[in-house]
Amino acid sequence: MFPYKTSIQLNRKKEQALYLQLANQFINLIKERKLLPKTKLPGSRTLSELLEVHRKTIVACYEELHLQGWVESVPKKGTFVHGNLPELQQQDFLENNVILNLKKSGFQFYKDASLNRKYFIPQEGFMYLNDGISDARLTPTEDLARIYRRICSRKNIYKDMSYGSLFGNEKLRITLANYLNKTRGLNIDKENILITRGSQMGIHLAAKLLLKEDDNLIVGETNYASADTSFLQQKVNLLRVSVDENGLVTDEIEEICKKKSIKGVYVTSHHHHPTTVTLSAERRIHLLNLAQKYNFAIIEDDYDYDFNYNHSPILPLASHDTNGNVIYIGSVCKTVAPVFRIGYLIAAKEFVNEAANQRRFIDRQGDALLELTFEEFIKNGDLDRHIKKVMKVYKTRRDLFCKLLIENFTNILSFEIPKGGMAVWVALYKEYSWKTVSEIAKNHQLEIGEWQRYDNANIGHNSIRVGFATYNEEEIYELINRMKKIFTELSSKVL
Amino acid sequence: MFPYKTSIQLNRKKEQALYLQLANQFINLIKERKLLPKTKLPGSRTLSELLEVHRKTIVACYEELHLQGWVESVPKKGTFVHGNLPELQQQDFLENNVILNLKKSGFQFYKDASLNRKYFIPQEGFMYLNDGISDARLTPTEDLARIYRRICSRKNIYKDMSYGSLFGNEKLRITLANYLNKTRGLNIDKENILITRGSQMGIHLAAKLLLKEDDNLIVGETNYASADTSFLQQKVNLLRVSVDENGLVTDEIEEICKKKSIKGVYVTSHHHHPTTVTLSAERRIHLLNLAQKYNFAIIEDDYDYDFNYNHSPILPLASHDTNGNVIYIGSVCKTVAPVFRIGYLIAAKEFVNEAANQRRFIDRQGDALLELTFEEFIKNGDLDRHIKKVMKVYKTRRDLFCKLLIENFTNILSFEIPKGGMAVWVALYKEYSWKTVSEIAKNHQLEIGEWQRYDNANIGHNSIRVGFATYNEEEIYELINRMKKIFTELSSKVL
Repeated sequence: MFPYKTSIQLNRKKEQALYLQLANQFINLIKERKLLPKTKLPGSRTLSELLEVHRKTIVACYEELHLQGWVESVPKKGTFVHGNLPELQQQDFLENNVILNLKKSGFQFYKDASLNRKYFIPQEGFMYLNDGISDARLTPTEDLARIYRRICSRKNIYKDMSYGSLFGNEKLRITLANYLNKTRGLNIDKENILITRGSQMGIHLAAKLLLKEDDNLIVGETNYASADTSFLQQKVNLLRVSVDENGLVTDEIEEICKKKSIKGVYVTSHHHHPTTVTLSAERRIHLLNLAQKYNFAIIEDDYDYDFNYNHSPILPLASHDTNGNVIYIGSVCKTVAPVFRIGYLIAAKEFVNEAANQRRFIDRQGDALLELTFEEFIKNGDLDRHIKKVMKVYKTRRDLFCKLLIENFTNILSFEIPKGGMAVWVALYKEYSWKTVSEIAKNHQLEIGEWQRYDNANIGHNSIRVGFATYNEEEIYELINRMKKIFTELSSKVL
Repeated sequence: MFPYKTSIQLNRKKEQALYLQLANQFINLIKERKLLPKTKLPGSRTLSELLEVHRKTIVACYEELHLQGWVESVPKKGTFVHGNLPELQQQDFLENNVILNLKKSGFQFYKDASLNRKYFIPQEGFMYLNDGISDARLTPTEDLARIYRRICSRKNIYKDMSYGSLFGNEKLRITLANYLNKTRGLNIDKENILITRGSQMGIHLAAKLLLKEDDNLIVGETNYASADTSFLQQKVNLLRVSVDENGLVTDEIEEICKKKSIKGVYVTSHHHHPTTVTLSAERRIHLLNLAQKYNFAIIEDDYDYDFNYNHSPILPLASHDTNGNVIYIGSVCKTVAPVFRIGYLIAAKEFVNEAANQRRFIDRQGDALLELTFEEFIKNGDLDRHIKKVMKVYKTRRDLFCKLLIENFTNILSFEIPKGGMAVWVALYKEYSWKTVSEIAKNHQLEIGEWQRYDNANIGHNSIRVGFATYNEEEIYELINRMKKIFTELSSKVL
């Protein structure tokens, strides 16, 4: 007889029931071909004595093996390993609880090297020059959590917890339509809104609906790198136009339209990513007229609308659009915190409907509980109050950071004070390179994680975005201190 | 002079500052060409008297218009509408607060009719024959909300609230790896896990990485309709094999492999969607061996693992995979509630890395606060306790529902009692059709929303899934009552 006693270990302290431990060990013995097909298993009485467990445990184990298809019962003859089980041809068999941590797939799949962007993992003690992100410490997290919990205690909340609308929670769509109409001069109904997981999903959906292989899309010669990537995933031709102090040069767009059919223009109207300039009123109207004349879409990514320090925000292109040319994309991720993945895609109803159909097959639907939380947060005026509060903080940080840059580094770099947003567009003088700076920076516990992503078109502007909003006053001084050390080392190298 | 007094209405009760109200109305007048380019605006003193507002308000308004680019100041001459503003060629100009609710886009985009699935909107008083969904009333919503709020009050929680890992929260990945190793016999490390927004995102990502135009993928002749759609979006050839009482017929898969190169097999091992059968142990081993021999991927969508009424769950294919052939997909959406969009894709590390890169351009990242909530929920044993609780409830509901079906409808339909899951696979006798039933059903306040989605391959099985889990005992009796009325009406029509 097979050495059951030495091959089977039962642990009475484990959570798992004994009969299941036993069944799983039998399954392993069968898979490992230690028990071959058609092998007769011992009778329940014999095995129970051998393993010193109750006979009922053996009976339950055999019943389980039978139900799972590993053994067959032949009346009056006993229990046999299933006769038709093929041999499992895996390289190695596993003990219980061995962690395999497979590295390589056993099949081919498509890799897209363009997606493989440097990903910054914060190290203890390091500071980080980021793209312009908000300070999560300013988030009214507990207020939001309180609203969330209150919503979860509503008597009929379960109705919002099953499979629901592809478009996002109805209440949030209504509140958001009102809010955006009031604050941004839009003229939309809830049916023009798809609630997304942040702007990136809006860009992804717009790209998917608008673009196929060899279509033409116009973007700036500098452009938001993640948007470029999303468009290139559709195998589109990116046609690049100049960007000056008034944003995309729309005359160049007009010239292209005269020669080629284009599907759309991607614009970060307010403020151009990465250079932080605002698209002028003149060009806004020009672009809208071109879109109407040549029937193309304007993908307006208004990620920075809430952050203007010098004047009230300029109304988006979408607020002047009566012809359905604009796909307007935004989110609360920058304004409140990236962890709250609530965004919106706004367009003519037929476009929103198709975007919702696509979205169904990406992640089915949003998080209605979080959507309801933000519905209250917006309707109560909490969002507006939060924006006012952080605006003051970020303006102070911008002013301090820019003052210190001017005081310390005008021999090495140049920049315009940004009128809004969370980042400064900083150009190094030609004798220096961000590559060298980022290498030296590591010696001084500063990570310049993203210097490569700002010159997709290789125009050699020698600039990167430097976010200031995420650091408080003390941290800004510390950042400047580290930059001083870095630039001192840099200058000594260049000299 | 332009009739400013009658053209401009200010509302002192509005939240918006007067100077901004004024500026926005000037912008509208400029856009509408009521104020033409180069028009001289009245001096601040004149306008302040005319409109009866403080002169400072006018100055602030002009300053705003200047900063936004709508007007130019010429020293000693005054303020003029910008000379180069093109005319906005939109059809109609909008009064403030007109809701446009655009229906048609001003551009062409790609529509995919296959995505346009019937979408059920619950009507008051109606019951719904669903695909097999959980009962959201059983969700421990308040417990989860309490954990969520406690996590939000953690001192350093802001560190988890900014841009974070593409793979999902690290703690959840560790806890989930342990949990799945313990409960499902997997042998994975956290690096084999990508946290997704539910199974649908897992299927979407797997399809995107694995499949391109004209690749071959094997699925059942009956198959989960949303998975079919996700694969067809990649323009793949779906090769269909038979499904019998032991699941996918793997001999047919082997025959195909001998003739054609295939990229993968999609399998709902436990229980086949839609027919609810379990893939037998013999076929599991056969399928794994084929995958290893022919280097294809097994996309194992284990949506129903937690719900087995007759025996303990059969370990997934992924638990026997030492060669990296299996992409294992699951979620808590069925087990806890669809609103909690937490799922996972498990595979060899190189596949998980590429999936994370792709995911970055879909929605950037998950919701770390919710992920941490489920980390606690799983680690504390709450999830296991919840599963035990609902299992009892659903088993009782299955037993009652199947008993009543047998008592009332054996002259019209047939079915096998499902060993697990939340739905019964119900076949009508050939003289009846679900189309007719669904039409009659509306007269009796029953919606059979999805009868069309179960026969993608047109094999004429005349069956649909009927979910029972979402209804309590009283509701099941009510559902059966309505079905009685419907089938009575149906029989009288057919006779």
